[in-house]
Amino acid sequence: MTGAALEAGRQAVRVDGARLLRRIADLAQVGAIEGGGVCRLALTDADRQGRDLVVRWMRELGLAVTVDGIGNVVGLRAGRKAGPPVMTGSHIDTVRTGGRYDGNLGVLAGLEVVAALNDAGVVTERPIAVAFFTNEEGARFAPDMMGSLVFQGDLALEDALATVGIDGTTVGENLARIGYAGTAPVGNNQVHAFVELHVEQGPVLEHEGYTIGAVTGVQGIHWIEFTVRGVSNHAGTTPMGLRHDAGIVAARIACFARDLTVELGAGQLATVGQVNLFPNLINVIPNRATFTLDLRNTDGAALQEAIARCMTYAAQAAAAEGVELSHRVLADFAPVAFDEAIVGRVEDIARSRGHRVRRLPSGAGHDAQMLARMCPTGMVFVPSVGGLSHNVAEFTQDQDIEAGAGVLLELMLELAEQ
Amino acid sequence: MTGAALEAGRQAVRVDGARLLRRIADLAQVGAIEGGGVCRLALTDADRQGRDLVVRWMRELGLAVTVDGIGNVVGLRAGRKAGPPVMTGSHIDTVRTGGRYDGNLGVLAGLEVVAALNDAGVVTERPIAVAFFTNEEGARFAPDMMGSLVFQGDLALEDALATVGIDGTTVGENLARIGYAGTAPVGNNQVHAFVELHVEQGPVLEHEGYTIGAVTGVQGIHWIEFTVRGVSNHAGTTPMGLRHDAGIVAARIACFARDLTVELGAGQLATVGQVNLFPNLINVIPNRATFTLDLRNTDGAALQEAIARCMTYAAQAAAAEGVELSHRVLADFAPVAFDEAIVGRVEDIARSRGHRVRRLPSGAGHDAQMLARMCPTGMVFVPSVGGLSHNVAEFTQDQDIEAGAGVLLELMLELAEQ
Repeated sequence: MTGAALEAGRQAVRVDGARLLRRIADLAQVGAIEGGGVCRLALTDADRQGRDLVVRWMRELGLAVTVDGIGNVVGLRAGRKAGPPVMTGSHIDTVRTGGRYDGNLGVLAGLEVVAALNDAGVVTERPIAVAFFTNEEGARFAPDMMGSLVFQGDLALEDALATVGIDGTTVGENLARIGYAGTAPVGNNQVHAFVELHVEQGPVLEHEGYTIGAVTGVQGIHWIEFTVRGVSNHAGTTPMGLRHDAGIVAARIACFARDLTVELGAGQLATVGQVNLFPNLINVIPNRATFTLDLRNTDGAALQEAIARCMTYAAQAAAAEGVELSHRVLADFAPVAFDEAIVGRVEDIARSRGHRVRRLPSGAGHDAQMLARMCPTGMVFVPSVGGLSHNVAEFTQDQDIEAGAGVLLELMLELAEQ
Repeated sequence: MTGAALEAGRQAVRVDGARLLRRIADLAQVGAIEGGGVCRLALTDADRQGRDLVVRWMRELGLAVTVDGIGNVVGLRAGRKAGPPVMTGSHIDTVRTGGRYDGNLGVLAGLEVVAALNDAGVVTERPIAVAFFTNEEGARFAPDMMGSLVFQGDLALEDALATVGIDGTTVGENLARIGYAGTAPVGNNQVHAFVELHVEQGPVLEHEGYTIGAVTGVQGIHWIEFTVRGVSNHAGTTPMGLRHDAGIVAARIACFARDLTVELGAGQLATVGQVNLFPNLINVIPNRATFTLDLRNTDGAALQEAIARCMTYAAQAAAAEGVELSHRVLADFAPVAFDEAIVGRVEDIARSRGHRVRRLPSGAGHDAQMLARMCPTGMVFVPSVGGLSHNVAEFTQDQDIEAGAGVLLELMLELAEQ
C-alpha cells in the first residue's frame, strides 16, 4: 500500500462504538453479579462461558483461532505477508467482584479493530492478532499475568499448570475441565509489536480531564503471603502477657505497611487485601493467620526498600509476640518501561484525533508488561469514572471507549504497515 | 438422716475416678478432631450425638430426664422430699477446635456424683439434678451461655430461638432439627443451690501448684461485632490518600485494643478472634470488614472504661479513613460474685480432703454465672495444664479430675441436706 492508499484506507476504516459497547454488554452477562459487575474467576465455568462467546465472535470475524498449552487464545487475521503479527488483546478473567471493562475492553476493542478492517475491506501488510491471556488477575491462581508470562516464555508451562489455586485445584486440571488446554506452542512466539487498550483503573485521567493516557510503563509489583503461627487459647483466661496471638501480628504488620507508605511518599502503595484467621472464633485467640501484602512502586529501588522494611518489621512483630512467621513470594515483577516510539505515537495519534492526552505510568499489572519482554510494546488508557476498578461499579464513558478504540485502530494500522 | 448417719454416708460415698475418665473419653469420641480435641458446635449433628449419649447415661443412672424449650437437659434424682434440687452441670457444646474437658467435665462429674450416690445407696434430703445447658460457648450463636440465661429467665425463649448463627440458620430451627426442642418450662425454675466443676482454662492453678480453685466470681464480658464499610478498588492504581480501606481500619482497632490492655494493666483483656474481609482478594482494597472484639475485666468500672475507649478510637479510625462503622453488642455481662458461704465451703472441703486450694476469679464465662442470679452458686476449678483451653491440646491431670469430682460430691451432699 502506498502512503496515499494508506491514508485513504485510514479514512475509510472506523470503529463502530455502538458495536463495541454491545459486545462489552453481552460479555458482561456471563458471570454477571449484583450491581452490574462480573465474577469470572480464571478457569471457572463462568470463564469458560466467556471464552466460548469470545471465540465464537473471533470465528464470526474470520479469525483463525488457536489455543495454547496455558489456555491463551489468539485469533489471527492474515496480512499480505506472513511473519510475526501486530498483536493486541488483554484478558477476560475478572476478580470476584469485578467490573465489565477491566481486560474485556482490550480484547473486545481488538475484535472491533478487526471488524472495522473487515468492513473497509482493508488487508494489512503484516498479520493482525487479537489475544486473550489466561489468569491475568491472579485472583484464583498466583502469580497474576500467568498466561502472558507463559506465552512470552519466562514461566515454564509445566510450572504454571501445577499451580494450586485458592480452592486447592490446579491450573492444569481446570484448563482440561473447561476444555481450554490447547496445543499451540508457548515460549517461542514471535510478535512484531503489542498494543493493549485498557481502562486506567485509577483516578488520574478523569480527575485531570484527559481522554487518553499514553502509558509509559508499569510499576513494580511484589506480592507476599505471610503465615503466622501462634497458640490458640481462651480469650477470657489467658493473661495478655502470655499470649501468642497470630491475629494481632497480622494486624500490626498491616498497620506498619500502611504507615510506611506515608513515610516513603506517594509512589509507594501497600495493600493487605486478604486476611484469614483460624479458628476465627470470637472467644479464641487465633493460632494461625494468613494474609497477603501487595507492594507496588514505579521506582524499583524504592520498592526493594519497602519490601525490606516490611520484612524486617514483620520479623520483629512476630518475635515480640512469640509466634512463628513464614512467607511466600507470590509475585515479583520489576518496573517495566514501554517502547518509547510507541508511547510517542499514542500521544501523536490521540492529539491528531482531537483528544487530550497525557503520559502516565500504569499502577496495575497488565499482560502488556510480559509482552514488553519480547517485542516493542505500548498501552492506551481511557479514564475510569471515580477511579473505580475491581469493583462492580467500574465504569468508563461510552465516548471514551470509542476514542480509545479509535486510537488503537490507527496505531495498529500503522504498525501493521511497518 | 442424722449427723452421724450423714458422716457414715459420706465415708461410704466415693467417686470412681476411672469411671468418670472413661465417660470423658467416650464423649470425646463424638465430634473428635485431630490432635485429641473435639468439635461439637452447638446444635450441630455432632452436638446431637453428644446429647444422645449423655441422655442415655442419665437414664441408665435412673435420672428423670426433661428437656426444656431451649434444649437444656436436666436429669433429676429424687430426694426424700420434693422441692428445688441441688443442681450441678455445665455444657457439652464446644468451640470449633475445642478440648475434651471444657464443659464436659462439669456434666460428667455430675453424673459421677449420681453414680456414687447410687453405688452407696444414699438418698439425699433434697433432690439432686445434673444439667447441661445449650450453647454455652457462643461459637455458633451469640450470646454465649444462652441456655442457662433462658433457664434463669433473663433472656426470653422466643428471642433466643430467633437468634441467627454464623451459618445463617436459627437456634429454633436447629433445635427442632436435632430433636431437642423440649417442653419443660423455662424462666421460672426453682433451684436450691448450684455448683459447677470446671477446668480453670488458665495457667494460675498449675503455675502456683494448687489442685483446687474456689471460684469467687466471673469477670465481666463484653462482645462487640464491628462492621466497617469502605470502597473496593484496585490495589495498584488507587493512591494511598484516596483509599477507603475497611481492612486497615479493622487492623488499627485490633492494635488499639491490644495496646490499651497494656495501658490499663493486667486485669483488662482484649481479643480480636474473628476477622472477615470482603472480597478478601490479594489485589483488591477491602470494601467490608467484620470483626469481633472480646473485652473482659473483673472490675466492672474498668471494663466500662475499656469499652468506651475502644468505641471512641474506632469512630476516630473510621472517620480518618472515610469509612462507615457500625457495631452490634453480642454479649454484655457485668462481673458476677459467687455465694460467699459456698466459696468458703469449697475451700474448707478441699483442705479437709488434703488438697492445696486458693480463691480466684474466673476469666471465662460459665453457666454458673447465670444460675447465680437465681440461687446460691459456686464453682470448683481444677488446673489446666499449660493454661490451654479452647484448644485440642487442652488437658487436666487424671488425679486433679478425681480431686475436683470428690470436692463436688461432698459439697453437693452437704447442700442436699440443708
